[in-house]
Amino acid sequence: MKKITNQILKKVIRQRPADSYKGTYGRIALIGGSQNFGGAIIMASLAAVYAGAGLVTTITDPTNQTSLHDWLPEAMFVDNHDFKTAAPIIKGANVIVIGPGLGTDNLALSLLTRTFELVHENQTLIVDGSALTLLAHNHLSLPKPSLNILTPHQMEWQRVSGIKIADQTPTANQKAATALHAIVVIKSHRTEVYVNDTVYQNTGGTPAQATGGMGDTLAGMIGGFTAQFSDKAKATLAAVYTHSAIADKLAKKQYVVLPHQISEALPKFMLKNQAEN
Amino acid sequence: MKKITNQILKKVIRQRPADSYKGTYGRIALIGGSQNFGGAIIMASLAAVYAGAGLVTTITDPTNQTSLHDWLPEAMFVDNHDFKTAAPIIKGANVIVIGPGLGTDNLALSLLTRTFELVHENQTLIVDGSALTLLAHNHLSLPKPSLNILTPHQMEWQRVSGIKIADQTPTANQKAATALHAIVVIKSHRTEVYVNDTVYQNTGGTPAQATGGMGDTLAGMIGGFTAQFSDKAKATLAAVYTHSAIADKLAKKQYVVLPHQISEALPKFMLKNQAEN
Amino acid sequence: MKKITNQILKKVIRQRPADSYKGTYGRIALIGGSQNFGGAIIMASLAAVYAGAGLVTTITDPTNQTSLHDWLPEAMFVDNHDFKTAAPIIKGANVIVIGPGLGTDNLALSLLTRTFELVHENQTLIVDGSALTLLAHNHLSLPKPSLNILTPHQMEWQRVSGIKIADQTPTANQKAATALHAIVVIKSHRTEVYVNDTVYQNTGGTPAQATGGMGDTLAGMIGGFTAQFSDKAKATLAAVYTHSAIADKLAKKQYVVLPHQISEALPKFMLKNQAEN
Amino acid sequence: MKKITNQILKKVIRQRPADSYKGTYGRIALIGGSQNFGGAIIMASLAAVYAGAGLVTTITDPTNQTSLHDWLPEAMFVDNHDFKTAAPIIKGANVIVIGPGLGTDNLALSLLTRTFELVHENQTLIVDGSALTLLAHNHLSLPKPSLNILTPHQMEWQRVSGIKIADQTPTANQKAATALHAIVVIKSHRTEVYVNDTVYQNTGGTPAQATGGMGDTLAGMIGGFTAQFSDKAKATLAAVYTHSAIADKLAKKQYVVLPHQISEALPKFMLKNQAEN
Repeated sequence: MKKITNQILKKVIRQRPADSYKGTYGRIALIGGSQNFGGAIIMASLAAVYAGAGLVTTITDPTNQTSLHDWLPEAMFVDNHDFKTAAPIIKGANVIVIGPGLGTDNLALSLLTRTFELVHENQTLIVDGSALTLLAHNHLSLPKPSLNILTPHQMEWQRVSGIKIADQTPTANQKAATALHAIVVIKSHRTEVYVNDTVYQNTGGTPAQATGGMGDTLAGMIGGFTAQFSDKAKATLAAVYTHSAIADKLAKKQYVVLPHQISEALPKFMLKNQAEN
Repeated sequence: MKKITNQILKKVIRQRPADSYKGTYGRIALIGGSQNFGGAIIMASLAAVYAGAGLVTTITDPTNQTSLHDWLPEAMFVDNHDFKTAAPIIKGANVIVIGPGLGTDNLALSLLTRTFELVHENQTLIVDGSALTLLAHNHLSLPKPSLNILTPHQMEWQRVSGIKIADQTPTANQKAATALHAIVVIKSHRTEVYVNDTVYQNTGGTPAQATGGMGDTLAGMIGGFTAQFSDKAKATLAAVYTHSAIADKLAKKQYVVLPHQISEALPKFMLKNQAEN
Repeated sequence: MKKITNQILKKVIRQRPADSYKGTYGRIALIGGSQNFGGAIIMASLAAVYAGAGLVTTITDPTNQTSLHDWLPEAMFVDNHDFKTAAPIIKGANVIVIGPGLGTDNLALSLLTRTFELVHENQTLIVDGSALTLLAHNHLSLPKPSLNILTPHQMEWQRVSGIKIADQTPTANQKAATALHAIVVIKSHRTEVYVNDTVYQNTGGTPAQATGGMGDTLAGMIGGFTAQFSDKAKATLAAVYTHSAIADKLAKKQYVVLPHQISEALPKFMLKNQAEN
Repeated sequence: MKKITNQILKKVIRQRPADSYKGTYGRIALIGGSQNFGGAIIMASLAAVYAGAGLVTTITDPTNQTSLHDWLPEAMFVDNHDFKTAAPIIKGANVIVIGPGLGTDNLALSLLTRTFELVHENQTLIVDGSALTLLAHNHLSLPKPSLNILTPHQMEWQRVSGIKIADQTPTANQKAATALHAIVVIKSHRTEVYVNDTVYQNTGGTPAQATGGMGDTLAGMIGGFTAQFSDKAKATLAAVYTHSAIADKLAKKQYVVLPHQISEALPKFMLKNQAEN
C-alpha cells in the first residue's frame, strides 16, 4: 500500500489561472437529502462550494431549501420531485454526487436509477451513502461515465462488494474495485483508496472526526476537487488527505470536530497548500 | 453533601481511542420541541452534538426542521407526528432525552407514553422539562431502562416528588430520588445531583446563566456525556460541572451567557479537560 | 435639557445577585412582525435576549417562526393568529413590546386593541413602530399599565402628538408627553427622552446607525432593560445611551453599523458598565 | 481605456453627515430569486445592506422569505406574486435592482415588464442576470428612469447587444452602450464599465472570485452605492472597484472567495476608504 501524504496536495491544487471564470471550475449537481436526512446533502454541498467548485446545484427535498440557502446562498436549489427541472442540471454537470442523506425509499431509488440513465461519458459520478445501499440491495449496475468514484464506509462496502468487514483485505478489496471499474474510497480511521492497480492508505485522521456527517463532507469535497482538477484519481487522493489533515489540525484544539468546520476551513488550507509556480 | 469539582472531568472525559467510529460515541434520540417551544429541543440537540455524541436524531414538530438544520446539519430529523419513523430510532438509541420544549398537550403526552413503552434495559433515559410536568400530572410511572436521569428545576421537582420547594432538603430529596430509582439533577444556582446514597452539590454557576434555555442545554449535555462515557453517574456529574464551568468562564466577559454559547464552547473545553494518558 | 451620559449606566446595570433564576430577570412578550416586516420583530427580540431578559416570547406571523429560531433559539414563539395562546403570555409578562414590524392591517389593529385590553397595572408597555401609527390613525387611548413608554421617530411622533416635525420643540413635546402620561423616546440623531418634568438628550449616536432596524433594536433593548432593572425611567435612559454607545464604538471600524451587531455586543458592553459593588 | 483605481473611492464614499437618517441613504427594491435561484437575490440584498443602503426591500419567491431574514433581518420582504404590495415599494424606491436569480419563466417576465412600466425619471434601474436574458429574448425596450445600469457577463452582453463574445471590443461595446443610453458593466476577469464617451477598465480582481454569486453581489453593491452617492456613474465605478479590491484582499488568505464574504467585509473597507474631511 502506498501512503497518501501531503505530497499529493501541491500536485493537485493548482494556482488558479488569472483569465478564468466560474465555468472553469466545474458544475456540480448534488443529489440527496430526504426530509429526515437533509443535513447530509447540505454538508456535502457546503464542502463542494468551499472547495472552490464553480457552480453548485443541490437537488433535494423541498423542506431542505431554506436550510440549504441559510448555509449556502451560493448554491442553486432544485426540488427532487421535479425531475423535469433536475434532468438538464444533471446532464449539464461535470460532476455528480449522489447519495448523502438520499434515503432508501421509492423516491430515492427512482432518483438513483433516473440519474444513472442520464449519466454520460464526460462526467465524474460520485456514489455515496444510501445510494450505495440502494445499489447493492437492488442489484443495480453502475453507469458508464468517464469515472465512477464510490465512497463507502466498511458496512456499505460489504453491501456493495459482498466482502464481509472482517474479510476486507487490500487484495480482496482491490479485486472488487477493479471489477467495478471504479475508484473506491473505503472510509475508516485510516481510509483506503483503490485506484486501478494501486492501493493507497491515508496517513491522517483523528477520532475527533468520529461524528455524523463526516462522510457527507468528504463526498462533497471529492466533488469539489474532481470538478476543478484534471487528474481525477489524484484529485480524489488529495480530497481524502485534505479532509483528515484539516480535522487533525482542528483536533489539536477540539475534542470533537464538526463536519461543517472542515468545509469552512477549506479556503485557507487550499491556498496554503497549492502548487508553487 | 459532596462537592462536584473539576476533579470529575479527567475521571470522565477519556481520550478518544484511535480506532473508533461514530457508533463508538453513541446514538441519541432527542424528543421535544412543539411549535411554541422549538428552540428548546434545538438547544438540547446542539449540546449533544457539540459534546461529541456520535449520531443525533431530533424528533420534533415539523415547523422546527429548518431551524434545527440551520444550527445543526449534523443532526437527523424526524417529524414527531410520524411515530412509525420515530419508533425504531428511539429503540435503537443508547440515550434518549425527552422533554425540552415538548409541551403538555395531547401529542406531547402521547409521545411520552409511547416512548416509555419502547424504552428498554440497554438505554439511558433523560427526562427533562415538560416531560416531568406530564409525568407528575398524569401520575405516570417511569419505565425501566438501564438508568433514568431526571433533570427538574425546583418547581418541576415539587410536581414530581410532591415536596414543596421550601421543604426540598437533601434528606427529603434523596428519599424521593431513591424511591424513583433515578439519578435526579435538581437545578438551581447551586445544582444538586442525587445518586443512590450520595448527594452532590455543584460548586460552579453564575447568575449570568439565569436565562431561558439553560436547562435544555444541560439536558442535551447530559445526553452527550452519557452516550460517550461508561460510568453514567460520573458522566452526569461531569456534564453538570462542565455546563457551569463554561458559563463561569464566559461570564467573565459577558453580562448574560446565552445557552448556545455554552454548547459552542464544549469542544475546546472538553479537550483541555480530558484524561491524561 | 439634561444630557444622558455614561453616568447612567452604573446607576442602572446592577451586578446580578448570586441567588437568582431566570424569572428574576423578567418575562417579555414582543408582538409584531407581519409577513412583510418579520425582520423587525426578530431584531427587537434579539436585543431583548442579549440584554439579559429572563424569558422572551415572540408573538408574530407564522412565516417568521424559523427565522426567529435561527437567530434566537432562546426565544419562544406564538403564532399571532392564535390569540388564545398569546393572551396568557401577554397577561403573564412583566414587559410588553408591541409594534416592531406589526404593520397596519386589520390583524395588526386587532392585536393592538386586544393587547391594550389585557394590559394591567403590573406591566410596562412599550409602544413602537406601526403600533404608534395605528394608535394615531385609529384615535386609540393608551391603556393604563404601570408605565407606558412610546418610542416614535419624528414622523410617528407627529402622528401621535399632532405636532409637526418642525414644531417639535422640547416644550411642545413635553406638554404632549405629559398629557399621554408616558415616557416618550423621540428618536433622531440626538434622541430625546421625556420623563415627567424632565427632558433628556442623548449625547451619543452616529450616522453609521442610519439604517433600517435600528429603532426595532432600541425598542427590544428598552424591553430588556425595563424587564431587569427596577427604576424604569432610568432603565429607559440607560438603554438609549447603550444603544448609541455601542454604535459609536462599532462605527470606529465600520461605515455602517447593522442593528443585529449592536445586540450581539450587548453582553460585553453591559458587563463592562455594570455597577461596582 | 481609463483604469479604475483606488482613486475613485475617496471621490465617492463620502463621510456621512451627522444629521442624517435612514432615508438619507436611499430606498432600494431588489426583485429576483425564483424558487431555484433564491440565493442570488439574498446575496444581492446582503450586498446592498452591508454597503449602507438606508432601507432595503426584497421582492422574491415566498420560499425565500426565511433564508432572506436568516441572513438579513434588516431587509423587508414582499412576495413576488403579490404585485399589489410590490408596486408601491417599486415606485417609492430610489434604486431598483432587478434580475438576480429572477429566472426566465412567465412570472419572471411579468415582473420585469410590470416593473419597467412603473419605473420613473427619479430612479436608478439596475438590470442584471436573467432580466438581461429576458430583455434580449423578448426584445423589450429599456424604460426611461434617470439612469439605466446594465451588469451583464459576456454571454448576457452578447444576448443584449447582439455582439458575439469574440467581437466585444471596446469600440463595439461602447457603440452598443451608447445606443442603449445606459451605463454598461461588462463583467469578466477585468471588468469594463461603459459610461457615455468613456470606457473604464477595472484593475483588480482575482480568479478566487470565479464562483457562483459574484455577479449577484456586485449588482447589490452597485445598488447600495448608487442609493447613497450622488454621482451615479462614479458610484458604479467605485462599486466595481470595491468588489474586486475586497476579493483581492481576501484571496491573500483564501483559495476561493465566497460572495457573502465580500458583502460582510464592506463596512470596514468603506470606512477605511471614505473621503477625508
